[in-house]
Amino acid sequence: MQEEATMAAYGTSSPTSDDVPTDETSRLIASNKVEGTSVYNLQGEHLGEVYNFMVDKYSGKVAYAVMSFGGFLGIGESYHPLPWEALNYDSSMGGFVVDVDRSDLEGAPRYGRDEDPWASDRDYGRTVHSYYDYPYE
Amino acid sequence: MQEEATMAAYGTSSPTSDDVPTDETSRLIASNKVEGTSVYNLQGEHLGEVYNFMVDKYSGKVAYAVMSFGGFLGIGESYHPLPWEALNYDSSMGGFVVDVDRSDLEGAPRYGRDEDPWASDRDYGRTVHSYYDYPYE
Repeated sequence: MQEEATMAAYGTSSPTSDDVPTDETSRLIASNKVEGTSVYNLQGEHLGEVYNFMVDKYSGKVAYAVMSFGGFLGIGESYHPLPWEALNYDSSMGGFVVDVDRSDLEGAPRYGRDEDPWASDRDYGRTVHSYYDYPYE
Repeated sequence: MQEEATMAAYGTSSPTSDDVPTDETSRLIASNKVEGTSVYNLQGEHLGEVYNFMVDKYSGKVAYAVMSFGGFLGIGESYHPLPWEALNYDSSMGGFVVDVDRSDLEGAPRYGRDEDPWASDRDYGRTVHSYYDYPYE
């Protein structure tokens, strides 16, 4: 994908860094290209793909990326939300890199295909942020 | 959709308004639910659907919604980007409402299935904002 060559700092918390391109050509990515992008850990192991992501309707900000793991860990297809801040795009990998081990994922918040904790649990976002040690705003 | 009942103020520029729910249950929407949502004008005419949307990789903010019009206006399938600020969610309509007439769309920035002006034109976002009279940041 054209975008991938210029996404090295994707997801970092320093949007004003000198490394960040200022033109939209390299700043923007289409929603349907984020979906399906591979996710790796720091060791380069393929963990899964981005299934979808959650957008705050009022601020217009992306809050969570939801990864899908098909059968991985022996738990069947499941969805693991991660705080958006936890994802960094690595153009050399062609995907997102997260500082999360497989063992971390085993105890992480997750849900099945027919579950929607975003609708049923008011504190779900807080739970996700807390699990990955990111501040909840 | 569960979300729709609580999305009355979607897209407004006053995220701290009293009308805005503070719990994530009603603030968050999944990316794949935005895609495919109907778009209407102020007269309630169905203009098209949200095809996808463009996310700023560094700020994590949604910048543009891209509407698709299949054959409408006699121009075949085409994609019309709109500044995200132009969209308001109307729960009674079950879709987004934009203050855009069909005649406005005829001269609006648009592209075909095989075109990618986001990659080829550095000023494309500025062009879109300018056409719809929204300030470009």
